Amino acid sequence: MSNTTRTELSELGEFGLIHHLTDNILIQNKTSVKGVGDDAAILTPPENQSCLVSTDMLVEGVHFDLSYVPLKHLGYKSVVVNISDICAMNAVPHQIVVGLALSNRFSLEAVDELYAGMLMACQRYGIDLVGGDTTSSRSGLVISITAIGYAPEAEIATRSGARENELLVVSGDLGAAYMGLQILEREKAVFQAAPGAQPNLEGYDYVLERQLKPEARRDVHGLLETLEVKPTSMIDISDGLASEIKHLAEQSGVGFDLYEEKIPVSPRTIEAAKEFNIDYLTCALNGGEDYELLFTIKPGDYDKIKGNPDLTVIGHATADVMGCRLITKSGEAIALKAQGWDALQNEI
Amino acid sequence: MSNTTRTELSELGEFGLIHHLTDNILIQNKTSVKGVGDDAAILTPPENQSCLVSTDMLVEGVHFDLSYVPLKHLGYKSVVVNISDICAMNAVPHQIVVGLALSNRFSLEAVDELYAGMLMACQRYGIDLVGGDTTSSRSGLVISITAIGYAPEAEIATRSGARENELLVVSGDLGAAYMGLQILEREKAVFQAAPGAQPNLEGYDYVLERQLKPEARRDVHGLLETLEVKPTSMIDISDGLASEIKHLAEQSGVGFDLYEEKIPVSPRTIEAAKEFNIDYLTCALNGGEDYELLFTIKPGDYDKIKGNPDLTVIGHATADVMGCRLITKSGEAIALKAQGWDALQNEI
Repeated sequence: MSNTTRTELSELGEFGLIHHLTDNILIQNKTSVKGVGDDAAILTPPENQSCLVSTDMLVEGVHFDLSYVPLKHLGYKSVVVNISDICAMNAVPHQIVVGLALSNRFSLEAVDELYAGMLMACQRYGIDLVGGDTTSSRSGLVISITAIGYAPEAEIATRSGARENELLVVSGDLGAAYMGLQILEREKAVFQAAPGAQPNLEGYDYVLERQLKPEARRDVHGLLETLEVKPTSMIDISDGLASEIKHLAEQSGVGFDLYEEKIPVSPRTIEAAKEFNIDYLTCALNGGEDYELLFTIKPGDYDKIKGNPDLTVIGHATADVMGCRLITKSGEAIALKAQGWDALQNEI
Repeated sequence: MSNTTRTELSELGEFGLIHHLTDNILIQNKTSVKGVGDDAAILTPPENQSCLVSTDMLVEGVHFDLSYVPLKHLGYKSVVVNISDICAMNAVPHQIVVGLALSNRFSLEAVDELYAGMLMACQRYGIDLVGGDTTSSRSGLVISITAIGYAPEAEIATRSGARENELLVVSGDLGAAYMGLQILEREKAVFQAAPGAQPNLEGYDYVLERQLKPEARRDVHGLLETLEVKPTSMIDISDGLASEIKHLAEQSGVGFDLYEEKIPVSPRTIEAAKEFNIDYLTCALNGGEDYELLFTIKPGDYDKIKGNPDLTVIGHATADVMGCRLITKSGEAIALKAQGWDALQNEI
């Protein structure tokens, strides 16, 4: 952001700011009848479809560190992580409403950057920003987004539908966002020790982008539809693969065998992990923030997905009593431990 | 709250806390197919009805002061102010999702109090708490609630439907919540000057309750239906009558004449205002937090509502060029000024 202009939020006031931010918002979806500007947004769900609603809160100093996260990226990511939850129901996201608490150290120009990032994500994912609330905060920035989507009830995939012998599938690759965070933290520490230092971010594009500008797998819904595969259960990977497998297991009443050698990790993630002396498997299992989709399919659907480079079968559901196990490359079965990120116990 | 037990939130962790808070939630509405526990809630809107969505954020030190607001009341109020926005569309609220950012000075017992208040409001208003996000905060408490409701599209009342000559109607009485706040602020100041002092709250029950435990006018929707009156525009009074009239005027493209002598103010509000040397009209016009409904009706509907003690005709819509005017008791017409509460400029 440039340092040339700084407009105080109090110059505009609450209504002035809302006008400034929302006057140019274009509505893309037919389901959005009326957006920002009234007591509530008016939405018309597609005929015979259910409505999916999910909410997430991002808190400065807990979920993000503005010393290395550009506001535009933060805005983009805050939308993505929310619509990822709608995608994780095998549904299609259409709308978001946004709550912002801003301290007075934020200028209008800073809020514009944040909003530009949010609207960029909306544009990319065909989402309408239909409402919000903007207020001041005594300390840091808090972003609360609620996402709304739709799906025919029969197509919705919850966390509880997995059955014994079904296959466990994941989209994309895992662990990169965690390595991106490690690199940002390292460069921050270098900078704090020597404030003139330039950050060394070269060659880390992939893992940095996965951390700073993650994408939601909105495409998986259409992909599975094309392949004629109905996922029996689904969840998105926000807290790490191990933690999410345990959620599916607990809510479906099954166990899972996860095959170490099948877990998809990018060579660039492996390389970065090596540099940090971190086991890349740990990044994939417990790193989190991948926003890939984890789901189960019927064994008979294996042939339909096996050729797809973006979907990997990483295990299968077992009897509940077996629990969740990691099958190592040497064939050993060890209990899967979830050390996923806990917003009440960890801070960045 | 008793001082006997204090359980740290970190003892439970994020998932433990969510289980603890949500395991006993009962679903009341048929439209709530699946509540807390998956990536998103699943809702089924009533056939041929639109979906209304509204979000609000309450920030410690900006919207509330925990030194005199009990957590249970705060929880109750946070739900009420959100569903009030749905009522203000002439719709019926069914669900909420709740985002909470908690600092570690909150114990499990404190969060239980807050939740008990929220669930009490849900119970009273027939609302289901179907989802949420709970995280830590570096400083104060932030509550973000998104409310969802339903109405046939033809019944929805926006801010933009008022037409010239229509009547301006308000439910209940105004200004009491503002006087309640003045009393709480006064007693806080007394206590700070002399920490042993007991607060003097006797005789102020009505205005205190209107501040600490406001109610949403969910009943007005049914009342108007019974009276066979369709409001042409509607808004709820959160920032003060003057500010809300201006919103209706701006969005409907009309002016309004507001009659000073018609503005309903409780004798108990007048009494308290007198004690503080505040003009009670100022409380009604600019105090806010009344959560009454302000709406317009066709002139021909006057006879249907005139006998109702809970509905007061306070003015009428005029031509846009006339602007918003207050007609004083002496018959003078003065421009209506909105000095409503602005979350970016005011703090409690």
